Amino acid sequence: MLKIAYLGEKFHGFAKQPGLRTVEGDLLNALQKMGYHTKIYPASRTDKGVSALSNVIQIDLHKDICRMLTASVHDIWVYGYCTADVNPRHCTKHYIYFLPGVYDHKDLDVCCSLFSGKHDFSAFSKIDKGTKNTVREIDVFHEVKDNVVLVHFVGKSFLWEMIRRCITGMKKYLCGATSRRELENMLQQKKGQKVPPAPAENLLLADLQYDFSFLLDQFSLEKMRKEFHLRFEVHSVKKVMFDSLLSYLTP
Amino acid sequence: MLKIAYLGEKFHGFAKQPGLRTVEGDLLNALQKMGYHTKIYPASRTDKGVSALSNVIQIDLHKDICRMLTASVHDIWVYGYCTADVNPRHCTKHYIYFLPGVYDHKDLDVCCSLFSGKHDFSAFSKIDKGTKNTVREIDVFHEVKDNVVLVHFVGKSFLWEMIRRCITGMKKYLCGATSRRELENMLQQKKGQKVPPAPAENLLLADLQYDFSFLLDQFSLEKMRKEFHLRFEVHSVKKVMFDSLLSYLTP
Repeated sequence: MLKIAYLGEKFHGFAKQPGLRTVEGDLLNALQKMGYHTKIYPASRTDKGVSALSNVIQIDLHKDICRMLTASVHDIWVYGYCTADVNPRHCTKHYIYFLPGVYDHKDLDVCCSLFSGKHDFSAFSKIDKGTKNTVREIDVFHEVKDNVVLVHFVGKSFLWEMIRRCITGMKKYLCGATSRRELENMLQQKKGQKVPPAPAENLLLADLQYDFSFLLDQFSLEKMRKEFHLRFEVHSVKKVMFDSLLSYLTP
Repeated sequence: MLKIAYLGEKFHGFAKQPGLRTVEGDLLNALQKMGYHTKIYPASRTDKGVSALSNVIQIDLHKDICRMLTASVHDIWVYGYCTADVNPRHCTKHYIYFLPGVYDHKDLDVCCSLFSGKHDFSAFSKIDKGTKNTVREIDVFHEVKDNVVLVHFVGKSFLWEMIRRCITGMKKYLCGATSRRELENMLQQKKGQKVPPAPAENLLLADLQYDFSFLLDQFSLEKMRKEFHLRFEVHSVKKVMFDSLLSYLTP
């Protein structure tokens, strides 16, 4: 099994699609060029736009594959390896949603505790024909960095678009458009109005927890660190640039 | 004359080029669709990648053109209007270079005072066959916002790539690769090694100063404010996301 990271904004999601750039497609291409023909079994098929620091794929190959793959793809880093022969989907997933804006801490606490625990998330998910059980148990908590709220979601399983739709519910509560009571009702009933999803670009699959660990590839880690630092710098500069532009426009 | 803003990362520079997206090209297209056939005379033909909050173009049209043009182009805002019939190039230009990193204030002061004043900027410009006089008089000063240094350049005329090459000179001094004496020498002699340019994406044409003023179009200003705010939010979120990614990777 391999541990991988990627930046969602560059891809039309994880799963292979003809004519579109996807994470699976790029990895299969790179493997093919290296002479390998294999299937990829991922832990999580993230949607279009969603980033991952820690997704896991099951393929049948040797250890050097990490640096070889990392060196031959763009915006994807294959940085961990383990020989465990298990279904990568059996793990605890940790997602982080980056929500811009300044909110009251108490309101954020209320939001997180409302969505934490065991609920029927029908109103906060997209219909998926294969899914009959819409009850999930999750843990939700938050932290604040530089006027951005990091909303953490931890659970063994999530419904389709569930986190992004929970975020929309939270935003509605935070801006006063929906009451606590209304959200509680939506988290109980199977039928009712659906909440639309918040943008995928702000969602990160931060970690997958297994009861075994991965060997980390230092070459791939170092490449990832350098490239993340460059992007951090670009966004730091652009943030200040737009802040300045806005200050010049303020009468 | 019209006052315009645009985001450099979206364009292959100001000047029209066949097959490439440019600011002049997009404006001419939009004007043509509206039934106008006119030439555009800009105050500054900014290079590929350079943004502008305040460039000025001279065209022969009526006042409503501002909102009509702003509504029909992307990443460009036409927001100011005046009837002065002068060459738009005759003005004082104010550029800002956004330099990421934390530097000593005294060192930054030394940099700015070194480049301020009247110098021969041959070593800090690209050869342009039409330019014989390479002496320019400029004013350089700095401010710091959120770990980014804003280096302000004010002058009546600049050589090709002069600001971006001055920034490279400053970076070399700030990291200790070039001494104050070496920079002083380079600012005196006509011949010698050229300094390469720093990235265009961090350079902004912030203002053009004339001895008359522009009528501002509120529709265009409001559209610009909203769109800048959205981009500010995107970069705020991405900055925090990459900061978090890096913190998870730090052993």
